Amino acid sequence: MADERTATRREGNEIEFSRIVAFSDGVFAIAITLLVLNLSIPRELADSQVANALWGLRDNFVAFGISFAVIGRFWVLHHRFFAELTGFDGRLLALNLVYLACVVMIPFSSELLGEYGDATAAVVFYSVNLAAVVLVGMLMALYAQRRGLVSASPAEHSEARVRSLFISGVFLATIPVAFVAPGYAPLIWLVLLVDVPAAIARRR
Amino acid sequence: MADERTATRREGNEIEFSRIVAFSDGVFAIAITLLVLNLSIPRELADSQVANALWGLRDNFVAFGISFAVIGRFWVLHHRFFAELTGFDGRLLALNLVYLACVVMIPFSSELLGEYGDATAAVVFYSVNLAAVVLVGMLMALYAQRRGLVSASPAEHSEARVRSLFISGVFLATIPVAFVAPGYAPLIWLVLLVDVPAAIARRR
Amino acid sequence: MADERTATRREGNEIEFSRIVAFSDGVFAIAITLLVLNLSIPRELADSQVANALWGLRDNFVAFGISFAVIGRFWVLHHRFFAELTGFDGRLLALNLVYLACVVMIPFSSELLGEYGDATAAVVFYSVNLAAVVLVGMLMALYAQRRGLVSASPAEHSEARVRSLFISGVFLATIPVAFVAPGYAPLIWLVLLVDVPAAIARRR
Amino acid sequence: MADERTATRREGNEIEFSRIVAFSDGVFAIAITLLVLNLSIPRELADSQVANALWGLRDNFVAFGISFAVIGRFWVLHHRFFAELTGFDGRLLALNLVYLACVVMIPFSSELLGEYGDATAAVVFYSVNLAAVVLVGMLMALYAQRRGLVSASPAEHSEARVRSLFISGVFLATIPVAFVAPGYAPLIWLVLLVDVPAAIARRR
Repeated sequence: MADERTATRREGNEIEFSRIVAFSDGVFAIAITLLVLNLSIPRELADSQVANALWGLRDNFVAFGISFAVIGRFWVLHHRFFAELTGFDGRLLALNLVYLACVVMIPFSSELLGEYGDATAAVVFYSVNLAAVVLVGMLMALYAQRRGLVSASPAEHSEARVRSLFISGVFLATIPVAFVAPGYAPLIWLVLLVDVPAAIARRR
Repeated sequence: MADERTATRREGNEIEFSRIVAFSDGVFAIAITLLVLNLSIPRELADSQVANALWGLRDNFVAFGISFAVIGRFWVLHHRFFAELTGFDGRLLALNLVYLACVVMIPFSSELLGEYGDATAAVVFYSVNLAAVVLVGMLMALYAQRRGLVSASPAEHSEARVRSLFISGVFLATIPVAFVAPGYAPLIWLVLLVDVPAAIARRR
Repeated sequence: MADERTATRREGNEIEFSRIVAFSDGVFAIAITLLVLNLSIPRELADSQVANALWGLRDNFVAFGISFAVIGRFWVLHHRFFAELTGFDGRLLALNLVYLACVVMIPFSSELLGEYGDATAAVVFYSVNLAAVVLVGMLMALYAQRRGLVSASPAEHSEARVRSLFISGVFLATIPVAFVAPGYAPLIWLVLLVDVPAAIARRR
Repeated sequence: MADERTATRREGNEIEFSRIVAFSDGVFAIAITLLVLNLSIPRELADSQVANALWGLRDNFVAFGISFAVIGRFWVLHHRFFAELTGFDGRLLALNLVYLACVVMIPFSSELLGEYGDATAAVVFYSVNLAAVVLVGMLMALYAQRRGLVSASPAEHSEARVRSLFISGVFLATIPVAFVAPGYAPLIWLVLLVDVPAAIARRR
């Protein structure tokens, strides 16, 4: 397996390589599924109170939806990145673990957002968590590129970097808004539904 | 990996393809196992009260059984669908994530059904959840067929569609019943134990 | 994929086959890991009470250990069984799901045993749960053998059947003991540490 | 599959072998992700109290970080060990299960450390848990070496053994400190960030 700074080629080490991928996928799959534990109904309600209790969970459902989409999107990006890797070393593995630690935090951040969507601290925490995932992901990409561990072209690299900066920028831009109107901050994230960097690139 | 609308052939991309399948399987496996967290016994009971407490959980056991069978069945159908896929694109991946989000909701819906099986809201929520899984699954199948990403014959496609409509119809048919006699609504789902569309097709 | 009664050969369908195995392994891995959620320490203790609280969890630790060993053992047996399968059909998949449903119940049964090891109901519930796993497993083996889906020799089959009957017998034997001295019932399971059927076979 | 003392060669049994690895990876991935469940915010706070509540979780965040790094590190070592295995038998599987049981305990130990980092009992429990993982891992390596199931050279073996003894030694050294100043004990673990055995070997 990979030493600290000795790169292991992917070819001839497909089993080790796929084990790293499978572990990462497992963490993604569990983190995305644990989101459901943030939805919970109090025991001992009267039958007639159930509809009201469900309605009271509407912010939690929204947080569930946002976080599911976000983790799903991160998984696709992680997927794309690993598909282009031609090798790995101990440092990249360590960065991947830091990346996964940030992903694993999302169910907690999402619980915060669902319960306290109007609290500045909750929105800031959520935004910082997501920005951290994107920035660590960009660090991984930069490291892999510098060490010659990816097959993508320089153009694709710079495109990926622009996209990462854009996404993390959107999350960090939420922070000042969270101090003024925390309840409206998540609306900013709707920008992410449009692939702005691609749209700009196309216009050029 | 798959771009938004550029289809990736499965051949030559088996690793990417199998990673998507493995991620989906992981989500199914975790969702089905989290059902057990809906079974819980209060602490601090006297030993003689344990049997009674277990008996008090009987609705939760029934909900566990139903939901386990349902998720298991969905997994088999998902399995079957992916076995016939010959390619995938970004949109199909996105639809698959929406599908999985609905599956991940089932442990929560099941908790609702187990705790409040006599409440209209709980039965409606559960039915809508399951119908949503089936309908999103049908959407995935339609999309894949239109984009030429599946190998199945037109006859198999229409058969699968009839089956999906039938299953989601059964779940949606529960909704009016839930307003009159919520406690009996789950009995309707017993129809699903018989493969009615296949029986009708055979008779023809 | 497998139709209800049409057997699919394993050769040429390794991907489908391995997906079933991976799903089962996922369920085993999650169920065995969820056991840790039965260990929990109350919040708001004074620092000096922590050692006492841990000591108060000793029955829960024992239940954790027993259940971890039991699920691990079942996984090895499941593993062995699937290694010998040469094909599968819809019925075998359905039986496998019933088997997994029983495995998924173990963390709940284990919580019961850990909290209420002196209550007859808890010990009976646990014993029935484990016996159910073994008996459904035996049913799977019988079905696969009758349909010609396994490669093992008749001698190996009958050996496996004797072992299953022995293990489930040990669990069921606990039930009467649980009515007299529930706290001592788990001691009976120590018999399972010795492979009695193998010992008898060797003596012959 | 592997009998108690009959070694199965890895070649020609890659499927069985990779299933063991996949199961272990699954357990690692779930255990590392369950750490997030130790982070939880009370319901029913006022929005202005959320920031304070998050600050009150700072020890839990530290415990999350330490345990994530520790499980991640153990996973890398387990990964490395299995990459060198050329065969396996029933005993090695059993040892692997004991190893995984110790890993699965970590989320509980981590909850203890996060909640009661100033209590001697919590720090001792955590240290013993981690030392147990390392020592069982060393036992696995020794067993595999004696039975000729690994391809590594004697030099690599002794290097791995020295590293294991060093790591478990660091954890066990925490115990006396935990009796005097439990809150400072985790600082000792920072030594693990430096690969001391490698540094000593290099100096020679």
